[in-house]
Amino acid sequence: MEIRVEKIVVIGLGLIGGSFALDIKDKRSNAIVVGIDTNSEHVLKAKELGVIDKEGTQEDIQEADWVIVAVPVDKSMNVLVDVLNKINSTAIVFDVGSTKSQICEAVKNHQNRRNFIAAHPIAGTEFSGPQAALKGLFMERTNIICEVEKTAFVFQEKALELFKQIGMRIRYMDPISHDKHIAYMSHLSHISSFMLGKTVIEEEKNERDIFDMAGSGFESTVRLAKSSPAMWTPIFKQNKDHVIKSLSEYIANLNSFKELLEQEKYEEVFATLEETNRIKQILK
Amino acid sequence: MEIRVEKIVVIGLGLIGGSFALDIKDKRSNAIVVGIDTNSEHVLKAKELGVIDKEGTQEDIQEADWVIVAVPVDKSMNVLVDVLNKINSTAIVFDVGSTKSQICEAVKNHQNRRNFIAAHPIAGTEFSGPQAALKGLFMERTNIICEVEKTAFVFQEKALELFKQIGMRIRYMDPISHDKHIAYMSHLSHISSFMLGKTVIEEEKNERDIFDMAGSGFESTVRLAKSSPAMWTPIFKQNKDHVIKSLSEYIANLNSFKELLEQEKYEEVFATLEETNRIKQILK
Repeated sequence: MEIRVEKIVVIGLGLIGGSFALDIKDKRSNAIVVGIDTNSEHVLKAKELGVIDKEGTQEDIQEADWVIVAVPVDKSMNVLVDVLNKINSTAIVFDVGSTKSQICEAVKNHQNRRNFIAAHPIAGTEFSGPQAALKGLFMERTNIICEVEKTAFVFQEKALELFKQIGMRIRYMDPISHDKHIAYMSHLSHISSFMLGKTVIEEEKNERDIFDMAGSGFESTVRLAKSSPAMWTPIFKQNKDHVIKSLSEYIANLNSFKELLEQEKYEEVFATLEETNRIKQILK
Repeated sequence: MEIRVEKIVVIGLGLIGGSFALDIKDKRSNAIVVGIDTNSEHVLKAKELGVIDKEGTQEDIQEADWVIVAVPVDKSMNVLVDVLNKINSTAIVFDVGSTKSQICEAVKNHQNRRNFIAAHPIAGTEFSGPQAALKGLFMERTNIICEVEKTAFVFQEKALELFKQIGMRIRYMDPISHDKHIAYMSHLSHISSFMLGKTVIEEEKNERDIFDMAGSGFESTVRLAKSSPAMWTPIFKQNKDHVIKSLSEYIANLNSFKELLEQEKYEEVFATLEETNRIKQILK
């Protein structure tokens, strides 16, 4: 009996693309994972680390069963259109970007729109590149799929099977709601963390040993300030309006808190902290 | 041969006091750890969990070899003066508070000042109460000691031995520098996290399921918003001036970043993120 080999093309061999490659190789024994990246060092590294089986070509895209587009969101639109132009009629293509409106808009009238799934797997770390790829990264994480009705049902089914195989739970959402809520739930955290890091670096620039004082609290709050600027700048750009709105509300809350301290209203400080402790229940 | 029993009194059976109790019981087989807390449920819980050997009394303080004061910093000054009034001449007393200027000021002329060590073990989690106590919490963490020259040398030596036994490294600092730097390295992180939690809760209050979108990034950045208001309100109060200064600089950085987005200066956004990535090297 002949086992049909499944060809997976991963475009963008960073943290997310690389982690998909590892999980797919782990869970689907008949899969061959080939990788494409504009950075040739990433391709070599991904091969060396066993993240991919070999380097991919344009021909591989034409023959692919799956194409995973995991490049920064500003590059993603062109790459996706190009991929959708090339694939065969039974291929399934999905992206993994942290913004969804512009992506969905860019492909909405494409003749192969039915082969595409607009996905946002909410998983990651502060690290980047193929060496950051982790097996099991998506386990028990949420994968948000936008405009699912525009994907052919047969491809929805197959994609869901893959996402469940690597441990993800699925949520459906329209792209505008996605971008609005993700500004608060993810993009704002990154800005808050980057600006915390900037503030502390500026203050302590002449204090060589002061970072010995960093506790696990500071490390956790500033962790996202290690994230990739090449990934995050285009996200902030694409989701500019929602990001600015969430950032304005965050700044307003910080200003109010500062005023409570300046006016020595410590009962209100206490009440504000206690009210916000609700996050304990919410995140459980 | 008779082994001398060492009596340790822990006042305040929360995360930090409880963790000291656990580590001392673990590392010093001749220690009896007795606990005192204004919250009688904490005493019962600490006994039930084996955090302390038994409830402590005022007489225990008089007979103690060690007294650890681990109460919120607004309570700490009165408790410390009371303890220093009662101890015998060979007892060693230390506090664990996150602010050091007012504590050092409160005891500077006390006749038993030489028995006291002003300490700040930089360790913790977002949880509180005796059930939050963790064995090994202080392993490889920094313990900042202020005005060490005011502690008798024999007590310095003994305390250093204890701190090293539970895995801490020691840093010496004057209390004003401590309070200034810790505003940036710890207190600001807590405010940034609390206000992030508040902003997101306010925006998403009518969205029951939206917190499924929380990724590990949001969870890490908002973690400190679970911290105890009873512990943190007095810290912000005691360190008000430094906290307000750090908070003002943080808000200024957030406003500048928002302006870059509003003016679509994405090259500068990228440069700011990249510059802040230096935190990777700094925290290593």
